[in-house]
Amino acid sequence: MHAALWDEVIRRGLAEDIGPQDATTEALIESDRQGRFALVTRQPVVVCGLPALDIAFHALDTAAVIERRVEEGERLAAGQPLAVVQGSAQALLSAERTVLNLLQHLCGIATETRALVDAVAPLGVLVLDTRKTLPGLRAVEKYAVRIGGGNNHRFGLFDALLIKDNHIAAVGSVGEAVRRAKRFAGPMRFVEVECDTLAQVDEAVAAGPDAILLDNMGPAMLRQAVAHIDHRCFVEASGNIRLETAPEIASTGVDALSAGYLTHSVQAADIGADWEVL
Amino acid sequence: MHAALWDEVIRRGLAEDIGPQDATTEALIESDRQGRFALVTRQPVVVCGLPALDIAFHALDTAAVIERRVEEGERLAAGQPLAVVQGSAQALLSAERTVLNLLQHLCGIATETRALVDAVAPLGVLVLDTRKTLPGLRAVEKYAVRIGGGNNHRFGLFDALLIKDNHIAAVGSVGEAVRRAKRFAGPMRFVEVECDTLAQVDEAVAAGPDAILLDNMGPAMLRQAVAHIDHRCFVEASGNIRLETAPEIASTGVDALSAGYLTHSVQAADIGADWEVL
Amino acid sequence: MHAALWDEVIRRGLAEDIGPQDATTEALIESDRQGRFALVTRQPVVVCGLPALDIAFHALDTAAVIERRVEEGERLAAGQPLAVVQGSAQALLSAERTVLNLLQHLCGIATETRALVDAVAPLGVLVLDTRKTLPGLRAVEKYAVRIGGGNNHRFGLFDALLIKDNHIAAVGSVGEAVRRAKRFAGPMRFVEVECDTLAQVDEAVAAGPDAILLDNMGPAMLRQAVAHIDHRCFVEASGNIRLETAPEIASTGVDALSAGYLTHSVQAADIGADWEVL
Amino acid sequence: MHAALWDEVIRRGLAEDIGPQDATTEALIESDRQGRFALVTRQPVVVCGLPALDIAFHALDTAAVIERRVEEGERLAAGQPLAVVQGSAQALLSAERTVLNLLQHLCGIATETRALVDAVAPLGVLVLDTRKTLPGLRAVEKYAVRIGGGNNHRFGLFDALLIKDNHIAAVGSVGEAVRRAKRFAGPMRFVEVECDTLAQVDEAVAAGPDAILLDNMGPAMLRQAVAHIDHRCFVEASGNIRLETAPEIASTGVDALSAGYLTHSVQAADIGADWEVL
Amino acid sequence: MHAALWDEVIRRGLAEDIGPQDATTEALIESDRQGRFALVTRQPVVVCGLPALDIAFHALDTAAVIERRVEEGERLAAGQPLAVVQGSAQALLSAERTVLNLLQHLCGIATETRALVDAVAPLGVLVLDTRKTLPGLRAVEKYAVRIGGGNNHRFGLFDALLIKDNHIAAVGSVGEAVRRAKRFAGPMRFVEVECDTLAQVDEAVAAGPDAILLDNMGPAMLRQAVAHIDHRCFVEASGNIRLETAPEIASTGVDALSAGYLTHSVQAADIGADWEVL
Amino acid sequence: MHAALWDEVIRRGLAEDIGPQDATTEALIESDRQGRFALVTRQPVVVCGLPALDIAFHALDTAAVIERRVEEGERLAAGQPLAVVQGSAQALLSAERTVLNLLQHLCGIATETRALVDAVAPLGVLVLDTRKTLPGLRAVEKYAVRIGGGNNHRFGLFDALLIKDNHIAAVGSVGEAVRRAKRFAGPMRFVEVECDTLAQVDEAVAAGPDAILLDNMGPAMLRQAVAHIDHRCFVEASGNIRLETAPEIASTGVDALSAGYLTHSVQAADIGADWEVL
Repeated sequence: MHAALWDEVIRRGLAEDIGPQDATTEALIESDRQGRFALVTRQPVVVCGLPALDIAFHALDTAAVIERRVEEGERLAAGQPLAVVQGSAQALLSAERTVLNLLQHLCGIATETRALVDAVAPLGVLVLDTRKTLPGLRAVEKYAVRIGGGNNHRFGLFDALLIKDNHIAAVGSVGEAVRRAKRFAGPMRFVEVECDTLAQVDEAVAAGPDAILLDNMGPAMLRQAVAHIDHRCFVEASGNIRLETAPEIASTGVDALSAGYLTHSVQAADIGADWEVL
Repeated sequence: MHAALWDEVIRRGLAEDIGPQDATTEALIESDRQGRFALVTRQPVVVCGLPALDIAFHALDTAAVIERRVEEGERLAAGQPLAVVQGSAQALLSAERTVLNLLQHLCGIATETRALVDAVAPLGVLVLDTRKTLPGLRAVEKYAVRIGGGNNHRFGLFDALLIKDNHIAAVGSVGEAVRRAKRFAGPMRFVEVECDTLAQVDEAVAAGPDAILLDNMGPAMLRQAVAHIDHRCFVEASGNIRLETAPEIASTGVDALSAGYLTHSVQAADIGADWEVL
Repeated sequence: MHAALWDEVIRRGLAEDIGPQDATTEALIESDRQGRFALVTRQPVVVCGLPALDIAFHALDTAAVIERRVEEGERLAAGQPLAVVQGSAQALLSAERTVLNLLQHLCGIATETRALVDAVAPLGVLVLDTRKTLPGLRAVEKYAVRIGGGNNHRFGLFDALLIKDNHIAAVGSVGEAVRRAKRFAGPMRFVEVECDTLAQVDEAVAAGPDAILLDNMGPAMLRQAVAHIDHRCFVEASGNIRLETAPEIASTGVDALSAGYLTHSVQAADIGADWEVL
Repeated sequence: MHAALWDEVIRRGLAEDIGPQDATTEALIESDRQGRFALVTRQPVVVCGLPALDIAFHALDTAAVIERRVEEGERLAAGQPLAVVQGSAQALLSAERTVLNLLQHLCGIATETRALVDAVAPLGVLVLDTRKTLPGLRAVEKYAVRIGGGNNHRFGLFDALLIKDNHIAAVGSVGEAVRRAKRFAGPMRFVEVECDTLAQVDEAVAAGPDAILLDNMGPAMLRQAVAHIDHRCFVEASGNIRLETAPEIASTGVDALSAGYLTHSVQAADIGADWEVL
Repeated sequence: MHAALWDEVIRRGLAEDIGPQDATTEALIESDRQGRFALVTRQPVVVCGLPALDIAFHALDTAAVIERRVEEGERLAAGQPLAVVQGSAQALLSAERTVLNLLQHLCGIATETRALVDAVAPLGVLVLDTRKTLPGLRAVEKYAVRIGGGNNHRFGLFDALLIKDNHIAAVGSVGEAVRRAKRFAGPMRFVEVECDTLAQVDEAVAAGPDAILLDNMGPAMLRQAVAHIDHRCFVEASGNIRLETAPEIASTGVDALSAGYLTHSVQAADIGADWEVL
Repeated sequence: MHAALWDEVIRRGLAEDIGPQDATTEALIESDRQGRFALVTRQPVVVCGLPALDIAFHALDTAAVIERRVEEGERLAAGQPLAVVQGSAQALLSAERTVLNLLQHLCGIATETRALVDAVAPLGVLVLDTRKTLPGLRAVEKYAVRIGGGNNHRFGLFDALLIKDNHIAAVGSVGEAVRRAKRFAGPMRFVEVECDTLAQVDEAVAAGPDAILLDNMGPAMLRQAVAHIDHRCFVEASGNIRLETAPEIASTGVDALSAGYLTHSVQAADIGADWEVL
């Protein structure tokens, strides 16, 4: 991922946390004191966010040394070190919370994504994310999905067309909406259309979209829809997909599942900092 | 909350979602078409984030009309409208996802906070948040805690001193750390110290902090610590507090509980947009 | 296009032009004086950039009235008015140059694009832009291409994969590069590969890309390449395409032409402001 | 030029091109791979923009090594290297297009400016730029004019006063406008006035401006105007000046020519990157 | 002055003062309460900064009504109202301190400048400011100097050349420095040179600068220097000029005085807000 | 203080001073020339702002070497060096004024604060700053107060509650205002209330605020107020406090004095740069 994006997210985090001063650290830690800490997992995680370490600690201490002990995307058990950081104790203490906040969020996403991928990949089905991300964090959250083995759906409203029920209502019919979208999109942008019924599926597929999103259908209906589509385009299932329900949905013949919870309801991964003031 | 903070968060969200164009909407919706939608709860929620509606929709359509149907902080059952928005159909469709992403996150925080407050307020105990927030979202996340009935702990490293084990290790003793922090803080900033043992509590309280944070203690030990402190300062319990365990912890005599999960592991509240193209 | 993008470009322009003051206007024009001007074509143009007028003049005079006389994308002869603006004479004079600089650039792009589209559209061939845009202006320049009847190729390095000779050299073979790119891209992102020889074309097409870019080939070779590809993917011709050479290239059977000159070597359209101080 | 200005332009360019990721490069190039390329002229150019190389490549790879082979402002034949860059292959590929877009634009300006300077400098006449620049690029475009041997007219509306016909119309007379402008300007800011007729020239020169801009006059009338002014102030000729017409205009006795095309209608200089993946 | 500059300064001030919330106002003032206050002088002042009122209060309450009671630049006795503001009581209280901080600073500058202008204008001598301004405030501080009747020296390092002793030392002689500066500057930028001795004055004036700055000379030496220069260029006296010493310096025949204290050592003008909660 | 805050202030200063170019330096100093200067006091000062040197000079020359000769907060006589800087002569000349402007302002604040602290500290009384700071400079100005031995009052409207007469008027009584503020503030934020009369003091103290601000009271009344409060909360005296009047006010038994002049009416400390071009 482009370093400038990490930089922007981290500097924003440091600015709102540190503000005019880290009062406790200024009060208690001499400015020439060195410190060291290990970032350690307190639960099993898929590692994500290591590039943030360099940027955050170097923002406050250009001489800080960050040694990664694992690779981005690696699976770790509880109690394993991700990295060891050494540098100005003031700098390390001032950046610690911001780093952990971001790391725990991204490891949380990667870990959940990996679990879902593991559940459906054996069936040849992909895991996609959604646009249900938090303001200002889309690029890093979608990065975490990739690190967890998922695929990114579109980045935003600009890089693909996804026709939803509101658009269809405005245009009048699924088929006409798809045709108009394809004309607008040109060859370089993907056109997908959301369908709620088999009748819509039939009308949609006839208009030749790149993909159909089957929204909130149960397994039986998904199977029928897949049969109607009959490999004429890519098929994505969506709507309240959870880890437990994913395998059954994945077995209906769809090409991919998309799940909003991966980014909108993230459980922070438990990662701690074991300190040593030198 | 200062409008500029809402503005910053929302514009960042709109920018990353819309980018150079909302291709689907440009392809399918005439620019002079009007639309209307109701934002409707799909689960019980404590409402939070209504000011975001005005800012987001007015950013794309200065003439959009936003009618609030409820008050910030109100408890709603499932299926209730929060607001009805009318304006340019293009603008409404382009802003919808950004608005929902923020609203669902903030309602999620307010709803969880309210549940925790309801569990411990009858015991006269306060609910506090932490600095475990997501980069760029601290101000809005802490606002949502307030709306949910919680109290904000410090906003960042600048507005209060919280002495943690790392600081204590650097200084050499709890007592000396507290004394030095109080000298640095002056009269205007709160000094709190984290204690893990009763011996630390005794040493800390002798040095006269404004508050003691009892970290990861079980109910029995909390009760003893509270007795040792004996009302000489404010007492906060922290460490893996959950809704189920909160009442027992609250009954130990502490003044407040703080819970990181309120902001670091937020379950998005389910809120939908029921559309009508006019 | 998202209003925030217009806003950003225009405010940047106004800031660097006006700086601390428009000295001439402050010296000579009373602050309560009203003015009016018509923006008038001095050559035939395809109109592009009208949304900039509202944003620029309202930035300096919220009460300015902007009446559009034409539609975005309309073809105008020389001597025709695009819009009439009325408001504070100081505001209008201070914003005039910034507005004209942007308008002349975008009309220049739209006009050139329209000419190229007119030359090849009868042959069923599309006109595409490139990433050869000026820093900070990509979104508005690509918008102007759309207004002129062209299609946008990818917006940047993020929304599609285009494998160039350097990538192929690093991977070792065209076929392997395409296969790896397709695995990475997932279903939502377009994979295109640049080919310089027929041998590369054969190897590429066998790996199943979404598109092949035939780079710097003459008409005869293009015809052969098109025959080799045989409708198995989208075909784009690129490399020093000019208005004069475009029809011959378009007649080779390719699906689209891309032309860097549309955005990297723009001739400003001649548009003037006919003033009237009221 | 101030490094912060280069920085701002380049970061803006990198951000809009790379966005959340350079997908092709991430897919195909190992992160520890090194690369090297030479930036090579494909036409004769006056070199401009070398400082951008360091900033752009170091933004993505702080260890990249940039060796300049020529000096800023040097004239190069086709096929000559400007610089050789070595570093992370991912970084070099991700920054390549942004760097070339800026370099080609600035070399284009410097090359055209140099041609115009060469045409009129033997006559003792200066070449000036205008405010007809693209939004966000004024500082770098005016820098390129200087590198090409031209002189910068004012940077914006703030650092000199240039009285145009609209200002004159508002004030009532050329003479009064000049007198008022001089009072406002004080000693530190230049006052120039645009004249369309000899009568205006006579009235203007009597009021003592620092310069007169003779707008859109043919050679015969320019000669008369120069005689009327008779060395009492600096004389600038403007209005549709092109390389072919410049010598005749320059021979009329004016002190300088200004030409908008140098910055508003720039032909990108053809410069390529010859790659080598190590 | 360009509204965007006011806007930037004020938003920065509001952001750092209000931060996540105006806690006192949120605690004590109902959100629908209206308020009104008069901004009143508590000492004699020259009014400066009225445009800030609209921007600051409208940033927090778009419906606030601001009635100016005086004109920018007007002299007021103590106890006079500058403006009356009415609107949301929360908004007014939250913006009050930021507005007063800026207004008191700018009125302070304008008032001091006016005093100095009054002291030397009868002698036909101008008052100039310097680059000794505070970071981020140059444009507004130089605006206040103009409002107080002074003239702006250059805005920065870009819009004029001022050769100081360090430059002269590097070049080797005053005369050569002036000649080189004039070649570089071209016709549009002012060249001034700082002289400390009469020998330097003689050498400088022979090289034809636009102005000479006589630095830290006493009245007798200033008189001699003025005689040496003999109207061949503009003459500025500088160096520890104060209100008391200004008339004697002004009587030496120089054209202008420049005084750093006008912007680097500003005494805030005493202005208060008389409140009324409605 | 957080380095990002220094960075922001300095970059803003450099940008507005240098703009598109430092014309004099470009004209006269070769780009490979080295220079050195000592920053030297020309009056007695308390040193403040040394971190700005590294940031400012490194922004223009990453290889510049900055040697500090003193510590932040040290008292220096006139004629003493603060630091010696060596690096690119162009870079040093271009940054010199911006550095001095900031340094002189901050040393001015620290010097005045130290004088006030020295006057009242022997009486056991603290010196506090106020929110009367200049827009964009609060963090650095409050830092200078700390360096001068003062204590920071609240940073802004967010980190403490200070009830003023307007708030009291809106609520109806001092007592009710304090009670409401304490409920809102929770345990972590300080509640202070401004009192003008002894009756208000009595009512306030009964409601249990953390502090009372005695506004504009003379020594006799202050003494009475202190007796009424009788150590039940912290006592701050405010209102037109000057160095001369401070000891008498401090001897009344108050805990602290706050003085707006420390930041709103700063006399720049006289510091110069003694140059040497190498």
